[in-house]
Amino acid sequence: MLNFEFYNPVHVVFGKETVAQLPVLLPRNTRIMLLYGGGSIKKNGSYDQTIKALQGFDFIEYGGVEPNPRYLTCMRAVEVVRKSNIGFILAVGGGSVVDAAKFIAAAALYREGDPWHILQNTGTSPLKDALPLGCIITLPATGSEMNCSAVISRQATHEKLHFADPKVFPRFSIIDPQFTYTLPERQTANGIIDSMVHVIEQYITYDVNTPLQDRMAEGIIKTLIEIGPYVMDNPSDYDARANIFWCSSMALNGMLSCGVIQDWTTHKLGHELTARYNLDHARTLAIILPAVLRYERRNKAEKILQYGREIWGIDDENLEDAIDEAIYRTEEFFHSLKVPTRLADYKIDPMEAAVAIRQRFETRETILGENADIDALAAYEIIRSC
Amino acid sequence: MLNFEFYNPVHVVFGKETVAQLPVLLPRNTRIMLLYGGGSIKKNGSYDQTIKALQGFDFIEYGGVEPNPRYLTCMRAVEVVRKSNIGFILAVGGGSVVDAAKFIAAAALYREGDPWHILQNTGTSPLKDALPLGCIITLPATGSEMNCSAVISRQATHEKLHFADPKVFPRFSIIDPQFTYTLPERQTANGIIDSMVHVIEQYITYDVNTPLQDRMAEGIIKTLIEIGPYVMDNPSDYDARANIFWCSSMALNGMLSCGVIQDWTTHKLGHELTARYNLDHARTLAIILPAVLRYERRNKAEKILQYGREIWGIDDENLEDAIDEAIYRTEEFFHSLKVPTRLADYKIDPMEAAVAIRQRFETRETILGENADIDALAAYEIIRSC
Repeated sequence: MLNFEFYNPVHVVFGKETVAQLPVLLPRNTRIMLLYGGGSIKKNGSYDQTIKALQGFDFIEYGGVEPNPRYLTCMRAVEVVRKSNIGFILAVGGGSVVDAAKFIAAAALYREGDPWHILQNTGTSPLKDALPLGCIITLPATGSEMNCSAVISRQATHEKLHFADPKVFPRFSIIDPQFTYTLPERQTANGIIDSMVHVIEQYITYDVNTPLQDRMAEGIIKTLIEIGPYVMDNPSDYDARANIFWCSSMALNGMLSCGVIQDWTTHKLGHELTARYNLDHARTLAIILPAVLRYERRNKAEKILQYGREIWGIDDENLEDAIDEAIYRTEEFFHSLKVPTRLADYKIDPMEAAVAIRQRFETRETILGENADIDALAAYEIIRSC
Repeated sequence: MLNFEFYNPVHVVFGKETVAQLPVLLPRNTRIMLLYGGGSIKKNGSYDQTIKALQGFDFIEYGGVEPNPRYLTCMRAVEVVRKSNIGFILAVGGGSVVDAAKFIAAAALYREGDPWHILQNTGTSPLKDALPLGCIITLPATGSEMNCSAVISRQATHEKLHFADPKVFPRFSIIDPQFTYTLPERQTANGIIDSMVHVIEQYITYDVNTPLQDRMAEGIIKTLIEIGPYVMDNPSDYDARANIFWCSSMALNGMLSCGVIQDWTTHKLGHELTARYNLDHARTLAIILPAVLRYERRNKAEKILQYGREIWGIDDENLEDAIDEAIYRTEEFFHSLKVPTRLADYKIDPMEAAVAIRQRFETRETILGENADIDALAAYEIIRSC
């Protein structure tokens, strides 16, 4: 096991009718920005419940955060935060809104230059401070409700970049799974895949003797696979929705990554596809993960075999066949959620994408993978095979 | 799944040579009390490393906290804290020292009467404030390094009582598994059993549809069973020690209890045995757990069967036999760690213990169990069968 630090101070309030607890979680005597996206929170009931709970608080609304939240949208909100003397940001919606809230909270107090630098930082975080924030999360997918990471996109340059800093942990996250009853099938499927790939990027690497972390990873994947197809057919089953949501929060709250080797290649390549073609985040993962596993089948052999054995019950004596089968079963699972796994399914030319991403990797001198072997050429090969 | 809250702000710093990080974790400009127990920290190296890391800090030492820390010992430390203007407590040692630190931190700022009331509270915590504390934990067992609970004993009245309050979460917990290389076999075994029973008390109750929590519980139990006997024979295997320690911290940090039904009957009965006969905490659990499972075999049937199937591979079609086998395998596991499971093994008369504990339950009107069916008579029956 590697040395590690674990720190996650998010106060999770999980269950039915938990928005009613908002008044005891929010600070008094400061102005709050109620941040949200499009119309979904007005359909699922979370907006109405939030407005009711906010009675007696000083707050302003700021809507319009888009999926894959944009830098310019966030910066417009930062202007409002500064002008309106906002002291707390309350995000209501999916991971995009929570990510935007984190970036706004950081950028509002960033006085050291262009806030875009917050996202370009590759070493230690440049943040000295951030506004406090909390969230009511209505979509199980990104895990943003229980971590200190965010991903922000810049349209002009086709960039989708990530930052992380403990200063932007939500002070609290309210999770009422009932808000997910009205999710479109597409978003339910996306969330299951996003959560599953979060787990896999912390699990299918190389082994450093962490059996508990492995079993926790396998526990989340098994639960997602078991309940995922069921919840697609039973969208208003509370326990199913609650279990999916808790899997999603646990998938990326720092618990699985304790002491293990990680590999975020699939996510990083996925961000490139989203930035370029505006594909849903989870759909890029469903395309890229199988290709990454095939490309890295030697380096990841031991863990792919363990994954196949523990998750899919694959016990083939021919190890190459067992690896193929594990990857194939993963693709089949994505298909069972009606999510395609090829670029061609979205009418994207793999060669065009591969060339563009190779250029991006060359420009940035990007190297990914737990063995630092995913360079521009490897990225090109992986994308070409999608 | 039940509604739940999860909040655990402990900053865990886990791994080799992590005591060296103490200077960046401790507050400056306040006097620190370095709290410890007997001589173990001087044997395992943690004392020397701590003193070295404390260079330049203003601190005083306070040793002599006993296993099952005593109220009077803690109250003497409280006097020192108040007189010496202590602003931070640094506990170095096992769970007893950390528990004592929590109680001292709470009692030092408790001005509403006799601090013993902190332990007698059954509803909401009476604490308004507590001193900050941190720890260097050297024994994997109680999980105290990652929760806000403590257990304190009062010799005069044969009482061993528990309190919990978020104000006494350690600000940080340093875990260097290398300190456990020198643990006596008895303490290694005790720690494995304590951790395993923590998990079982959050798992073998009745089912409320929480598959992920179940799998996490099973993951910890499997890992303890797999590595436990190995580490007894290989006390200086770093990864084995690290995995046992992480199981222990994860067993009681609030993660397993999210949304599930709990039953702390075995612990509560065990505390009675420790208070009366001074038996090691874990050894009381090894005696009582099998008796509780047998007594509650109807109510807990579904989960005992799941436990037997998932942990021990028991697939007997006769369910009564399967339950018997699961309990028997648990006892056999305790025996494999050289821990007896009968009161007679400690020359304690079960009838005498049963009568005494029945009286205690009657006086306190104690009712335990997830179905509130463990009253004085049930406690008597359980202890009599030990």
